[in-house]
Amino acid sequence: MTEIDINLVQAHIEKLDMIGKMGNGGTSRLSYSKAWRQGQAFVTMLMETCGMTVERDAIGNLIGTYLGTEPNFPYLMVGSHLDTVPEGGSLDGALGVLTAIECIRTWQIAGYRPLRTVKIIATVEEEGTLFGLGCMGTRFIVGEMTMEKFAALHDKQGKTLAEYFADNGMNYEALAYSSIVPDEVFAFLELHIEQGQELDLSGEPCAIVTDIVGIDRHWITIQGHANHAGTTRMDRRRDALVAASMVVQEVYKAACSSQGLYVATVGAFKVTPGATNVIPGKVEFTIETRAAHDETMENVHLEILKLLRQVEEKYNVKAMVNERRFAPAVHFGTTISEELSKAAMDVKQKVKKMPSWAGHDSKIMARITQCGMIFVTSLNGISHSPEEATRWADVEKGLKILNQAMKRIASIPQC
Amino acid sequence: MTEIDINLVQAHIEKLDMIGKMGNGGTSRLSYSKAWRQGQAFVTMLMETCGMTVERDAIGNLIGTYLGTEPNFPYLMVGSHLDTVPEGGSLDGALGVLTAIECIRTWQIAGYRPLRTVKIIATVEEEGTLFGLGCMGTRFIVGEMTMEKFAALHDKQGKTLAEYFADNGMNYEALAYSSIVPDEVFAFLELHIEQGQELDLSGEPCAIVTDIVGIDRHWITIQGHANHAGTTRMDRRRDALVAASMVVQEVYKAACSSQGLYVATVGAFKVTPGATNVIPGKVEFTIETRAAHDETMENVHLEILKLLRQVEEKYNVKAMVNERRFAPAVHFGTTISEELSKAAMDVKQKVKKMPSWAGHDSKIMARITQCGMIFVTSLNGISHSPEEATRWADVEKGLKILNQAMKRIASIPQC
Repeated sequence: MTEIDINLVQAHIEKLDMIGKMGNGGTSRLSYSKAWRQGQAFVTMLMETCGMTVERDAIGNLIGTYLGTEPNFPYLMVGSHLDTVPEGGSLDGALGVLTAIECIRTWQIAGYRPLRTVKIIATVEEEGTLFGLGCMGTRFIVGEMTMEKFAALHDKQGKTLAEYFADNGMNYEALAYSSIVPDEVFAFLELHIEQGQELDLSGEPCAIVTDIVGIDRHWITIQGHANHAGTTRMDRRRDALVAASMVVQEVYKAACSSQGLYVATVGAFKVTPGATNVIPGKVEFTIETRAAHDETMENVHLEILKLLRQVEEKYNVKAMVNERRFAPAVHFGTTISEELSKAAMDVKQKVKKMPSWAGHDSKIMARITQCGMIFVTSLNGISHSPEEATRWADVEKGLKILNQAMKRIASIPQC
Repeated sequence: MTEIDINLVQAHIEKLDMIGKMGNGGTSRLSYSKAWRQGQAFVTMLMETCGMTVERDAIGNLIGTYLGTEPNFPYLMVGSHLDTVPEGGSLDGALGVLTAIECIRTWQIAGYRPLRTVKIIATVEEEGTLFGLGCMGTRFIVGEMTMEKFAALHDKQGKTLAEYFADNGMNYEALAYSSIVPDEVFAFLELHIEQGQELDLSGEPCAIVTDIVGIDRHWITIQGHANHAGTTRMDRRRDALVAASMVVQEVYKAACSSQGLYVATVGAFKVTPGATNVIPGKVEFTIETRAAHDETMENVHLEILKLLRQVEEKYNVKAMVNERRFAPAVHFGTTISEELSKAAMDVKQKVKKMPSWAGHDSKIMARITQCGMIFVTSLNGISHSPEEATRWADVEKGLKILNQAMKRIASIPQC
C-alpha cells in the first residue's frame, strides 16, 4: 500500500496557511471570510483528487465522501475544523482535516476500499470567534441549534449570521435542515494538536484522548463599601478587592496542590469604582474549573462556596455566586478507545493516554456518536498564536495511528 | 457680645443645600454650574449683610472683606470651598464658609473690629470634579497655575475651562493675574467636617488638625503570560492576577498592622485580557499610601519594591513601578496651632489633636502662609454622600473655637 507522505501533508499545511496570512506571521481564516472560502476551495480540490465527492452542508461544514463497500452501513466521520482564531497558527484544526485526507489519498492510490463509508469533514466556526459560540458547525450537526438560536447570534459589530450567509451567497433558510442524520454516523475521529504541554514535557509524540474535561464556570460578585482611601481607617474598611484577592490566592493554591486533578482560573475580573483614591466597593469576577471528573468539579464548587463564606466573615463583605454554568466532562467510550490502542500497537507506536483540557468538535459530536481523538505534541504548549508548532516526525506518528484506526473502525461489521 | 447662633448656621446650611438638590437627596453644586452661581449669590448676600465688601477673583473664589483697625497689616483668611462632588452632602466645604460668616455676623452686631482685616473665602473647584484637579481655586491663589496649565484642562466631555468661563460670563484672560498677594496673607483658617471616623469613634466633638497627610501613589504593571485556561498546567502558569492579588493582600496586611501609622489602598485595578477562559496576562493597578510622616511613606515604598521582587520570583512575572507621585505631608506650624489650643481653652472645649487623612484647601494654602484647621465629627465617617451628617451641638463647639481663634489671630500685632 502507498505510504503516508508526511512531506505532502506539510506542503498542504503550508499552502493552506498562506491563505489568510497576516503581516505578523499569524493566520486569520475566520469562518465565512474570503480566506475561509479560499481554504475550502483548496480542501475541496484535495478531496476530489482523492476520489471523494464533496458537498457543503447548510451551515458550511465541508464534507468529502469516500464510499465503502457497504454504503448503507453507518459511516465513519473523520476531521476537524477549518476556521482559525484571528492571527492564529497553521495547525489548529487544519491538521486534523489534512491528515485525514492524506489517509484517503493513500487508500485511493492503493485501491483500498473499507467496509464502511468514510466522510472527511472540515467544520466551520469551531473557535467561536464570530459570535462567542464555539463548535457552531458541530452543534448544528447534533441538532442543538434552532432557527431561533441562529437568529440571536451577532458579532461585536452587530452583524448577524444571516448577513454572513448573504456575503457568501449561502441559503440561510436551509439552516432548518441538516444533511447529516445522526443515526447514520457510526463514529467520529479527530486528530488535533494538544495545545497543552503534557506531551512536550513528557517527551512523547502523541496520545490517545480518553476524556474531554468538563468546565464549571462561576460568575461571582463581592460587594463591599466604596469609601475614601484617606479617611477610612484600615480596621473599618470593607474592601471588595482585598476580599476578592484572597479568593484568587486560595483558588490558585488549591488547584496547584491538586496535582493535576483539575485546573482553576480567575480570568474576568472587574473592580468598581477603580479609582486611585477610592476603596474598591465591588469586584465582579469569574472562576473557571476544568476537570476530567464531574465529582472533582463539584467538590471544588463546594470549596468555593465555603471560601466565599470565609471571605464574607473576614472582610465584612457580601460574596454571591450570580450564575454557575456546568458543562460535564465527556468520556470517550471503550470501543473506539480500544481500536485506537490497537491501531497504535499495529504501527508499533507507544502512546500516552490523557484527557483533553480544551474543548473540541469531538466533545459536541459525542452527543450523537462514539468518538475518539489523537493528540500530537504542541511545542511549549503554544496554540492560537503564530508560534504554534509540532515536529513533523510527531505528526507522522499520530497520522499513522489515525490511518490504522480509520481502517480498523471502517472495517467493523454491522452489529 | 452677641452669641454664636447655631440655629442660624443650620438654617443657612439647609437653605444653601436646597440649591442643587437632586432627586435622591444628594446635592450637586458643581463649580461654574447654575447651582454654584446661585450658591455664590446666597453667600454674597450673607456676607454683605454682615458688613463685608464682596469680590470674586479671576478664577471664581468668592471673597468677603471685614476690615480691621489696621487694614495695612497682612490679613487673616478664613473659609473653605463652595463646590460639592456630584450628589454630595450639605456640609463638606459649605460648613467652613457659613461658620466663618456667622462669626463675622456676631462681630458686626457687637461692633467688634479686630486689629487685622479678616477675609472670608468660598473657594471654587476644591473637589476636582470637573478636571480631576483638586483645589484648583487655591492652587490659583498660591501661584501654581499658569495659563498653559489652565489651557490643558478639560472635562470628560472635552469641555475646557475657557468654555466654563464663557458660560458664566467670566473673563478667561484675567486668569493671568490673582488679586491675592501672598505676602499680604497672615494666616489661613479652615473649619471642616472630618470625613473620617476618628472623632465619631473617640466620642470627641472636634479636633485641631496638626498635619495633612502626604500621599504616595504608585502606578504598577504586572506582566505575566496570557494563556489557555484549560490546557496550561498550574505549575506552568505565569498568572498576572494571582501575582497582583498577593500584592493586594500583603499591602493590606502591612497597613492593618501599622496601628494607624498609615493607610494603604489598591484602588485602580485593571486585568487584561479579562476573559473567563484566559489566564490573565497583565494587571495594571495603583497603590496609594497616606501618612503624616514622609519617612513612613518612604519605608512603605521600599517595602512595596521588595514585595514586587518577591512576587516576580514566586510567580515568574515582571512587576514594574511605571510611575510614582509623592506629595509630602504638610505640618501646620506651631503659632496657629497654639492659638487654636488657647482658643479651645478660652471656650472651655476639650479637643483632640490629629492629622487630616484627606486633602484640603489648607494643604495648598500652607505653601504661602501659616494654616490651621478645626475638624468637627462626621457621623460614621461618611462624606461625599447625602448621608453626610454632623451633630449640630458638635458644630457649635467647633464654631466657638473658630470664633475665638479668629479673634486671637486677627489680634496678633505686627511683628
